[in-house]
Amino acid sequence: MTIQKPYLLFIGDASEQAAAKMAHGIAFWTPENVIGKISYPECKALIDVPEMSIGEAAKKGAKTLVIGLVNSGGFIPENWLKTLVEAMEAGMDIASGMHTRLAEFPILKQTAEKTGVKLLDVRIPQQDYPVGNGKKRTGKRLLTVGTDCSAGKMFTALALTAELQKQGKKATFRATGQTGIMIAGEGVPVDAVVADFIAGSIEILTPNNDPDHWDLIEGQGSLFHPAYAGVSLGLLHGAQADTLVMCHVPTRTGMRGASHYPLPDLKSCLELNLQTAKLTNPNVKCIGFAFNTSQMPENEARSYMDKVEKEFGLPCVDPVREGVKRLVEKMN
Amino acid sequence: MTIQKPYLLFIGDASEQAAAKMAHGIAFWTPENVIGKISYPECKALIDVPEMSIGEAAKKGAKTLVIGLVNSGGFIPENWLKTLVEAMEAGMDIASGMHTRLAEFPILKQTAEKTGVKLLDVRIPQQDYPVGNGKKRTGKRLLTVGTDCSAGKMFTALALTAELQKQGKKATFRATGQTGIMIAGEGVPVDAVVADFIAGSIEILTPNNDPDHWDLIEGQGSLFHPAYAGVSLGLLHGAQADTLVMCHVPTRTGMRGASHYPLPDLKSCLELNLQTAKLTNPNVKCIGFAFNTSQMPENEARSYMDKVEKEFGLPCVDPVREGVKRLVEKMN
Repeated sequence: MTIQKPYLLFIGDASEQAAAKMAHGIAFWTPENVIGKISYPECKALIDVPEMSIGEAAKKGAKTLVIGLVNSGGFIPENWLKTLVEAMEAGMDIASGMHTRLAEFPILKQTAEKTGVKLLDVRIPQQDYPVGNGKKRTGKRLLTVGTDCSAGKMFTALALTAELQKQGKKATFRATGQTGIMIAGEGVPVDAVVADFIAGSIEILTPNNDPDHWDLIEGQGSLFHPAYAGVSLGLLHGAQADTLVMCHVPTRTGMRGASHYPLPDLKSCLELNLQTAKLTNPNVKCIGFAFNTSQMPENEARSYMDKVEKEFGLPCVDPVREGVKRLVEKMN
Repeated sequence: MTIQKPYLLFIGDASEQAAAKMAHGIAFWTPENVIGKISYPECKALIDVPEMSIGEAAKKGAKTLVIGLVNSGGFIPENWLKTLVEAMEAGMDIASGMHTRLAEFPILKQTAEKTGVKLLDVRIPQQDYPVGNGKKRTGKRLLTVGTDCSAGKMFTALALTAELQKQGKKATFRATGQTGIMIAGEGVPVDAVVADFIAGSIEILTPNNDPDHWDLIEGQGSLFHPAYAGVSLGLLHGAQADTLVMCHVPTRTGMRGASHYPLPDLKSCLELNLQTAKLTNPNVKCIGFAFNTSQMPENEARSYMDKVEKEFGLPCVDPVREGVKRLVEKMN
């Protein structure tokens, strides 16, 4: 699947900032791919991108309208449909990260047939993947793992990619979730792959490469999440990571979507990740931690990270506050 | 999905005994559901079931022709199609465990439309499953886990179910693979479920039940298989097993389909299963081992099992040679 750039970001009636996190991620990481945004008067999310009409965006060259917000249930309300159809009639493809296929909405299907534009369901695998073979591949791989979902795994992998590229190193971000795929323009929506092919799909995502090339692979879920650990383990095995970075939100008190489950402690989480990763790469090691300390005052965040750094003897950073240079120094 | 019984087993031109293992499993575990079989002259598999024509089977009341053999690639050769169409015209549904959908073969699709019989793809999930919630359910659960694929997990779960029922206990076999589903008439084809829903599908498969009721859940794969460990972990979490039985083939030298990977040792395999199972059931324990010692002389098998029994302090049985009574004694 190729998502044609540049994008017009649609955030419609996003009910809160978090609902537009896909649009925000795309605008933050690849501003060069973003022409503008469309929001409705009731929109509660702020994205620092010029507001514009469909006509204006089309004139400026927007090739794809990206549905950059989530709503619960995966349906598309009537008022969105109007905007999407208008964009299609102006020649734009539509890209969506929802579980529901765009073509299941009759008006979108009809309009696509009429106009010839594409409906791109980023969350739905577009190819058949093989079962994993576990064979060693060339090139270097780093996987971001975490104590929970939404712990900064995509952000950290993107920050590491940017820092390596800035230093002139060969590095590619490998997307495994819908926002990551919109940013990279390609990837594997691993949580939507058929269970038998989880590891195999990641082997395809990160093929043989130059010995000094790094794949920075976006992790998903957590080995300690009661719903998603299977995805995390298959991804870990398929990645054959040489290097792990562990992501964590110190202020979180329960697992995301399963708050009756406590977060695992860092030591247990790290040990289980290393132990299971060794199956497909016996030389795997962890080079540090990436924390999202946005809910902590700066001094508290620093003293927390100093403590962890001392306990594990590994660099601890908050990629937003200070970048990931100290992690990159450990990548060799 | 309901698979109407009784069955006519189709083993066509099975190239070896192992190719007809689904038919064999059905005939062995549920002979009361089997009317007869159809094999071609070149068939290399023996199943102890009367050979009969489509017409004869229909007259005796066969409701479903079950494709009881596997071939590589999941295609259906021309000579099978003829038999399948004849069965459909005699009023039988067709049930298949292949990855390829039956309806993808135009002649089968057309014949189904014409005759009104059903094409049942046992390997393809027929419903949407929720994500797992990890909430404790009532009733007791045993899961068969293993060092590898094809290590006796289905056989052991079925043997335990039969033994419990013989003793007058409440017990239900819960199928997770295509042969198990054909035997039970229902189940979850877990390796074909979308990755995000692995654990959730197993929560649905084994719902709340009476406090003294046992679900005997068929395990899949192995936490140490480089392709399938994600399925195994999601299944383990969704099962919330109180009790594990570990299945192993002592004579196997490499992982199935990935023979460059050695089998894990029993101790590491048991520890990792218990450790990860504790996430959703902190009280999980292992009550014993089930070995497939068919490739060992009886005295060698017994001395191997005695050694393991001594090492772990847990009963070790070969379910085929001696049954599973000694395991059932530990279920409380």
